[in-house]
Amino acid sequence: MFSLGGFSRGGEYENKTWDVLIIGAGPAGFTAAIYAARFGLETLILSKDLGGNMALTDLIENYPGFIKISGSELTNRMHEQAKNLGVDIVFDEVERIDPAECAYYEGPCKFAVKTKNGKEYKAKTIIIAVGAAPRKLHVPGEEELTGRGVSYCATCDGPLFKGKKVIVVGGGNTALQEALYLKSIGVDVTLVHRRDQFRADKILQDRFRESGIPTILNTVVTEIIGENKVEAVKLKNRVTGEETEMPVDGVFIFIGYEPKTDFVKHLGITDEYGYIPVDMHMRTKMKGIFAAGDITNVFKQIAVAVGQGAIAANSAKELIDEWNSKVVE
Amino acid sequence: MFSLGGFSRGGEYENKTWDVLIIGAGPAGFTAAIYAARFGLETLILSKDLGGNMALTDLIENYPGFIKISGSELTNRMHEQAKNLGVDIVFDEVERIDPAECAYYEGPCKFAVKTKNGKEYKAKTIIIAVGAAPRKLHVPGEEELTGRGVSYCATCDGPLFKGKKVIVVGGGNTALQEALYLKSIGVDVTLVHRRDQFRADKILQDRFRESGIPTILNTVVTEIIGENKVEAVKLKNRVTGEETEMPVDGVFIFIGYEPKTDFVKHLGITDEYGYIPVDMHMRTKMKGIFAAGDITNVFKQIAVAVGQGAIAANSAKELIDEWNSKVVE
Repeated sequence: MFSLGGFSRGGEYENKTWDVLIIGAGPAGFTAAIYAARFGLETLILSKDLGGNMALTDLIENYPGFIKISGSELTNRMHEQAKNLGVDIVFDEVERIDPAECAYYEGPCKFAVKTKNGKEYKAKTIIIAVGAAPRKLHVPGEEELTGRGVSYCATCDGPLFKGKKVIVVGGGNTALQEALYLKSIGVDVTLVHRRDQFRADKILQDRFRESGIPTILNTVVTEIIGENKVEAVKLKNRVTGEETEMPVDGVFIFIGYEPKTDFVKHLGITDEYGYIPVDMHMRTKMKGIFAAGDITNVFKQIAVAVGQGAIAANSAKELIDEWNSKVVE
Repeated sequence: MFSLGGFSRGGEYENKTWDVLIIGAGPAGFTAAIYAARFGLETLILSKDLGGNMALTDLIENYPGFIKISGSELTNRMHEQAKNLGVDIVFDEVERIDPAECAYYEGPCKFAVKTKNGKEYKAKTIIIAVGAAPRKLHVPGEEELTGRGVSYCATCDGPLFKGKKVIVVGGGNTALQEALYLKSIGVDVTLVHRRDQFRADKILQDRFRESGIPTILNTVVTEIIGENKVEAVKLKNRVTGEETEMPVDGVFIFIGYEPKTDFVKHLGITDEYGYIPVDMHMRTKMKGIFAAGDITNVFKQIAVAVGQGAIAANSAKELIDEWNSKVVE
């Protein structure tokens, strides 16, 4: 277990019952933390990384207040803001959440949160803000060559491919934006998209067309080839059935998201895709557990995540107030 | 009618049918504009002011990305961002919205938006983001002395009262925060609150207590006295019934909000208080009309308003896409 400062504080984080335990340190998690701390609630963030997908975005242009900002800078700013209010982050991954010690019907409950590092945290309320991880192609070679030419983050890996040839796979906002970014830093980019049109915002489509980035439509990647690093991709035209091999040094994949919520699957609060549906108050199907951000599958945007984070913290506060007013002992 | 640059562009704004007409230029309106413009939709903002309540807030500490920022600066930043995407603001007040020219059942509709300046704008979709105005005490003297010692904006009017004696009325976040602000700039502040405890966040209550600002609880203002400017207030203790007169130079009132939605009252989309309820997609009871921000009465925060603005723009886009795919002519 590592605390924010990089040193272990022993059992300090485990020996108390947190008012609000936030899982995930992206825009939703940070905002929930800022609000919960300002409400005077004992608040802790548990997260496997800092910033989630936000930190991996090279350029953000649609978060109100910043005409342009990098994902890493916005992450640092939100992190600083939560830290200033006394909220710590423990870097660890949650393995399972269980409700325990319900004092009486309808709460207050105490949740037990077990982590990969073998720790157990206790909290009155939980806010799940884990985001959703990038979706994989699930083709031969993808897993073996991840980090050896296969990437899901242009900001992280793009600079390694300057002057080299890569394909970007996808047709949404992220795919087009990251293709533009890769080109802007001197990477030789070709875009490969399975459909005949893009899902991206018009402004991005216009910008993409103006860029002159070569585009292969109606085409899927069927295999990624290479010994120790990516050497080529096998492509298949979905209309003609034609298969070709294209020599490339890198494959950047931006085809959507895969929510990872196995740690609450047994609680029945996830949908068939693994997302966690919420109501207007960010309540899940289980009292005391709230969700915010991409994992709710409402509209995966930083602006939306911060709104949901604020609402989730407010709902957690209201529930704790309600429970406190009921405690008779 | 004044356009952004302060000059009239004649009928330019009225002669077209806008994809999205946004009413209000606060955080929700600006965010909706940023998203709609990026979607490639023809977007106009109609607003009676710039920034709404956000612009009147002296210090914002809970908008993610900024540890501290003034309301006017955040307003300018969001305004700049919308302007950069080509969105203009027409400064005017909406008087009435009517659905018209529905081509067939379930749309596409065209809304007619009539304004105080006698103009009429046409739009396929409307996003109502008018915020909610500060609530008034409704006591004798209040209206007559507004701008002469009675104020609803500490940032605007506070500096005029340096070294003078004022009361702040209210017990929520805004009241405590603005009382602290007034004290910090050298105003002699006393807080008057009708209840025996505050509704404000704990962090603010703590800070308020530390400030030593004199506080009169269980007390209401029954009259504001003065010839050409505020000279005194009449106070009444709600427990003892005791009435007193207190000489003051100013009265700052922060007791909540009053939504003003008369312009859509006939459409049946408002609730009994004048707020506009929305679903998760920011849809109101009328197809084609969306709402976002304080006017939805979800949780009156800038973070929430931007999230709702983004969702409203996305829902407007999806509806327009749906209508476009149905048009057969």
